[in-house]
Amino acid sequence: LSVESSNNPPGEFDLIAQIKAQAIQNAYVALGIGDDCAALRFRRGAEVLVTTDMLMEGRHFLRDTASFPEIGYKALAVNLSDIAAMAGIPVAALVSVALPRHEAEAAATGLMLGMKRLANDHDLALIGGDTNAWNGPLVISITVIGEASERGAVRRDGAKPGDVIFVTGRLGGSLLGRHLRPRPRVREALAIHEDAEIRAMIDLSDGLAGDLAHILKSSGSLGATLDADDIPVHPDAYQLAIETGRHPLDHAMTDGEDFELCFTVAPVVAAGLLAYPPDGATIFKIGVVESEPGLRVRYGPYKVVPYFARGFDHLADPLK
Amino acid sequence: LSVESSNNPPGEFDLIAQIKAQAIQNAYVALGIGDDCAALRFRRGAEVLVTTDMLMEGRHFLRDTASFPEIGYKALAVNLSDIAAMAGIPVAALVSVALPRHEAEAAATGLMLGMKRLANDHDLALIGGDTNAWNGPLVISITVIGEASERGAVRRDGAKPGDVIFVTGRLGGSLLGRHLRPRPRVREALAIHEDAEIRAMIDLSDGLAGDLAHILKSSGSLGATLDADDIPVHPDAYQLAIETGRHPLDHAMTDGEDFELCFTVAPVVAAGLLAYPPDGATIFKIGVVESEPGLRVRYGPYKVVPYFARGFDHLADPLK
Repeated sequence: LSVESSNNPPGEFDLIAQIKAQAIQNAYVALGIGDDCAALRFRRGAEVLVTTDMLMEGRHFLRDTASFPEIGYKALAVNLSDIAAMAGIPVAALVSVALPRHEAEAAATGLMLGMKRLANDHDLALIGGDTNAWNGPLVISITVIGEASERGAVRRDGAKPGDVIFVTGRLGGSLLGRHLRPRPRVREALAIHEDAEIRAMIDLSDGLAGDLAHILKSSGSLGATLDADDIPVHPDAYQLAIETGRHPLDHAMTDGEDFELCFTVAPVVAAGLLAYPPDGATIFKIGVVESEPGLRVRYGPYKVVPYFARGFDHLADPLK
Repeated sequence: LSVESSNNPPGEFDLIAQIKAQAIQNAYVALGIGDDCAALRFRRGAEVLVTTDMLMEGRHFLRDTASFPEIGYKALAVNLSDIAAMAGIPVAALVSVALPRHEAEAAATGLMLGMKRLANDHDLALIGGDTNAWNGPLVISITVIGEASERGAVRRDGAKPGDVIFVTGRLGGSLLGRHLRPRPRVREALAIHEDAEIRAMIDLSDGLAGDLAHILKSSGSLGATLDADDIPVHPDAYQLAIETGRHPLDHAMTDGEDFELCFTVAPVVAAGLLAYPPDGATIFKIGVVESEPGLRVRYGPYKVVPYFARGFDHLADPLK
């Protein structure tokens, strides 16, 4: 019971042995797989960030629509997205899995393929975990450890009235398949935060309306007005709207699993960001934070309508 | 998807909401539950230790022999034992669970009870995790983050020929029930390491013979001779021997889940430890590290017999 191979007989299905053999390390790793703990060394005085997510077969993915590499990729990506949402630097990951016994080897190898690609992309060390096979469905639980940038971690609760609200990409309709291959906006967040002080940030997992509401509420019961014409609607949202009969904007506002970032900056900083967009990051200005609580949408120049935030409901997934 | 409540409808079964409400924090926590990540602040220059373990119903515990508080306690204890095995200071834990839907509330509340007791005992912060209910069996995955002491993390690979080998408690027979309530030897390890330089250490999860072999192998294919009369046999090992017909010493050597520590120190340091035992830690001298590979047991003053290491095999559990 340690950060190393478990009590399973050795074999290809031992994911941790595979990780160890491939030695995916970086400069932070003082001690890798093979002892009771792994050890990391951070920049002096740095804040250490930690986040975790558990994905379960039948609840977060279905085996007939998601391959093992896709599941491994996504399980790691959603954690990296949380690090991105603090404008943090990903450092290392621990991966624990309960593998279905009848396909344990295929599962371990496939999960590894998906995770490795992303780990390499982000210079993320894989420093351990726990592998077990059982007769139950696939469960994968990943913990990612990161480091705040020199500017500090960006929290959700720093928005102020007058702040301009941005998102980093087009929204909605990810259920058509995009949700399986989110691109965690790690580099984008660091690039933006280097150029401009981000006051509050969150990653969009539950839908723009619901996640923005988290920022507004935790920043002191603030509100916001979004410009309908400025909200970047993903082509998938139009596609999905054909099937659901809902408005594409509605999908952009409430669909989950976009994994884009939503952030706020002071007005003068926003002007700078718009005039000189950060290298390698796409940003869309979508609205303004206000002291009056509640979320509103402006249609055209005059019509402002209250928007009733309704987050992504996994149970009401239209495709299930 | 973040270190906070999941997408479940709110309720008592949301373990993370329970953790948040009870605010089990300490001086390391810069940012607790409720943002995309939690943030920790360590002593400047400290090595950060991380370890993780996933326990699964039917594989690591059975619902008819283990209560929810016992499962929560044990899932956290085995991780703390890994921190102890580095002579580390536990700092914070992340807890992810897949709860059986039909008893999700009882499970969350029970697990929390067991974990809370141990967290309070060790000034361990609970800083997040992920809760989900499903139709599958109970899975609990815990990651513990710690800090190396000022003397540095104790690894497995530092043993040298001539080192004296110690254990921190009586061994064997934990399957009779003790394995559900291990006492992680966190304080003991710190007390010993403060008095004496520990060269190599491991926690006994797979049995003395197998775990000591990890130390010997990783320290450069060393060997050891243990004194049969010095190995502290637990009363449970005698009890179990009645049922199994095996020798009690055999249980002490090979039974798993003792969660005592096994460590080596230089001979002169051993003399000091024996003359002035560390406060609050019980230690037993059991043998000596040698350059000749292999594990040997000395019976009486002259008879030295090779011991064939056989670790604890969960599948061969005599009580299952």
